[in-house]
Amino acid sequence: MKFLHSSDADFESKFSQFVRRSDNDMSAVIPVVTGIIDEIRKDGDSALFAQISKFDKFSVTSKNDIIIDVKEMEAAYNSLDNALRVALNLAHDRIKSYHERTKPSDWTYKDEHDILLGAKYTPVDRAGLYIPGGKAAYPSSLLMNAIPAVVAGVKEIVVCTPAPGGKVNPLLLAAMHLCGIKTAFKIGGASAIAAMAYGTATVPKVDVITGPGNIYVATAKKLVYGDVNIDMIAGPSEIGVIADDSADPRHIAIDLLSQAEHDEIASAFLITPVEAFARAVQRHVEDELKTLKREPIASASMRNKAAIIVAKDLQECFKLMNELAVEHLEIATNDALSYMDEVKHAGAIFFGHFTPEAMGDYIAGPNHTLPTGGSARFYSPLGVENFMKRSSVISVSRKGIMHLGKPCMQLAEAEGLTAHKRSIAVRLED
Amino acid sequence: MKFLHSSDADFESKFSQFVRRSDNDMSAVIPVVTGIIDEIRKDGDSALFAQISKFDKFSVTSKNDIIIDVKEMEAAYNSLDNALRVALNLAHDRIKSYHERTKPSDWTYKDEHDILLGAKYTPVDRAGLYIPGGKAAYPSSLLMNAIPAVVAGVKEIVVCTPAPGGKVNPLLLAAMHLCGIKTAFKIGGASAIAAMAYGTATVPKVDVITGPGNIYVATAKKLVYGDVNIDMIAGPSEIGVIADDSADPRHIAIDLLSQAEHDEIASAFLITPVEAFARAVQRHVEDELKTLKREPIASASMRNKAAIIVAKDLQECFKLMNELAVEHLEIATNDALSYMDEVKHAGAIFFGHFTPEAMGDYIAGPNHTLPTGGSARFYSPLGVENFMKRSSVISVSRKGIMHLGKPCMQLAEAEGLTAHKRSIAVRLED
Repeated sequence: MKFLHSSDADFESKFSQFVRRSDNDMSAVIPVVTGIIDEIRKDGDSALFAQISKFDKFSVTSKNDIIIDVKEMEAAYNSLDNALRVALNLAHDRIKSYHERTKPSDWTYKDEHDILLGAKYTPVDRAGLYIPGGKAAYPSSLLMNAIPAVVAGVKEIVVCTPAPGGKVNPLLLAAMHLCGIKTAFKIGGASAIAAMAYGTATVPKVDVITGPGNIYVATAKKLVYGDVNIDMIAGPSEIGVIADDSADPRHIAIDLLSQAEHDEIASAFLITPVEAFARAVQRHVEDELKTLKREPIASASMRNKAAIIVAKDLQECFKLMNELAVEHLEIATNDALSYMDEVKHAGAIFFGHFTPEAMGDYIAGPNHTLPTGGSARFYSPLGVENFMKRSSVISVSRKGIMHLGKPCMQLAEAEGLTAHKRSIAVRLED
Repeated sequence: MKFLHSSDADFESKFSQFVRRSDNDMSAVIPVVTGIIDEIRKDGDSALFAQISKFDKFSVTSKNDIIIDVKEMEAAYNSLDNALRVALNLAHDRIKSYHERTKPSDWTYKDEHDILLGAKYTPVDRAGLYIPGGKAAYPSSLLMNAIPAVVAGVKEIVVCTPAPGGKVNPLLLAAMHLCGIKTAFKIGGASAIAAMAYGTATVPKVDVITGPGNIYVATAKKLVYGDVNIDMIAGPSEIGVIADDSADPRHIAIDLLSQAEHDEIASAFLITPVEAFARAVQRHVEDELKTLKREPIASASMRNKAAIIVAKDLQECFKLMNELAVEHLEIATNDALSYMDEVKHAGAIFFGHFTPEAMGDYIAGPNHTLPTGGSARFYSPLGVENFMKRSSVISVSRKGIMHLGKPCMQLAEAEGLTAHKRSIAVRLED
């Protein structure tokens, strides 16, 4: 873990490496992924089955080998430990409740010329959710991707998840049952994205693809973007903490580790104005690392991708953190909410001493699919709006065209578009 | 112009060609555009200046050759014909008024455990607008891209527009002045997208790029997507009209031509349940074509990309039109608004006999930057939200973690994430 002071002579150059942490070069991967996509567009199921057999290491000869049966989902749900089922249901209900508040409603108004203007929202017909499987199978990802689609009113939701050896994680199956998923396939990586973007005999073509994944999945999503919509291009997870000595340094150490344990290339940053606090967190990180099941992963992340930064004051903490534009931002101070306006760029903001980031991963309610790598500068968390689209509504009255027709014709004329102009002129004549 | 009946034996195969009208193959263009982007990332201004000299055909040796002076914008605005200035201002004010209604506001609520949840909206720091120039310089495009960015509160707006021979259309300059643009460059095509996405010594790096363009611009936007956000991948313009014989066939003929005159590959569709009306529109198209300044363009579009379809009834008209998912949809019937619920996919909907699509292009208020080629299945019109992003807000109370901490730990445990679990456990202990 790097330990920096904002007053160091070389601070800017060191810090800028963290700001630029997402310089992920897809160029090496693009040819491979382009090949995968082209095969599936050309040969459909047969290419898809061959790719699964090759990459996910189980033999696929017919669609029955990759279809996940709804009865399997139900059985997995019924076999859950009781406390876990209650927890999963609680998470489901809280996530749903938050997302229901974000569903847009149609609106219209009439202006002074009796012209009706507004917007109409409709769900996409079909959504495709990519949920990672294998070594990191997260049922919470299924909830976080499926629930906004359900709330949006999407009629057909398609799930793809890698199933190494043909096995799907039972918790993931249980989460599918809970969300009412009817269509799911054992397909991983770029193959899944290509199949959902263009359709095969087995996999329905969708309109929107969401969900996290590795560099192959991210590259495939970028390449199919425009032919379908996608949520974002996401990279490894990350946390930024702004804390002062009102926080417990052990708590903050564990919070940093809670992102580090995700991935060797996950990032963790603490920015604090208190040197002694920074040192205490550093010590606790060393101690706490030993307790973790995924210690090797967390150690690698903390060694290569983490930094503790001592800043001049809280104001500078926010300035630096806004430059990092992190996925998860914890503000662990007293009166944390009073700093709301200081945050310019962050995927999700966790305020106060009782809001460890993990509460947001599972149960608080807001989505845990968040922009990474500094893309909180321009991306939003996954939401209901990713599964809907807006149509503008315009109804011009006779009075309206009488008032606005002439100036509109002048603009069309200025742009040299005579049919545009004439489409108004003929209506004014009559 | 194809003339089809939905009852024809081969209707489906003919119609499906129109549904799939956007199968635009970028693969031929990708290597060229990748080269342009790589040069600019590597060599910055010097690559940029060389590219402008080559593609936009004027000699660029220093940044002064490509910077558009705000005084030029002001002078162009002051030189406008008076009626045109009034019209431009009226359009500006109406567009602004509509977009102001769409600006999202921060919101929070407390749940039953005193947990604060919500969302906070912030503008992006810098937005880049690409505005086509040369043979099709549209000041209306500047208004439609700049106004939502201004309403969003974006502090720094960068405009790029091609300036063949170094000349910028005076109307475009005037529109820049009206929108308060301070930073603008004479840069066209993929070079402009690359320069704004990655920054050069002269051109600031932006967070979001919006605006229409040709296949090179569209491909560049796709390739930089993820490093910046973009609005959408847009193709040639298009119109779909659903009309019955309550409409004037001459009006509808001109409306079809108002998209056809944009581009040889623009599309125009009429779907009507009335055969005689369809034939009348067909005749008027022939007559009206002759009156157009851009007749050769409109003729090519109508010949190759347009269709008149006679359907069984209005219900089938909507079914077919939803499959086309057009950019501009006119519903030219009596009681047009009563068909609101029938529309599933359309960029903008124009209701009634006094709402030619051109009113929406300039002056109605909603944005004219709309999804094309069937992407209204998943994209929305350009809007204020393209220039803002949302951060989730979470503040868990002591009471909240007492109630939800345990089930949250169970979910973390099930996913094998011990630091996640422990970050809650240590807070419950204290």
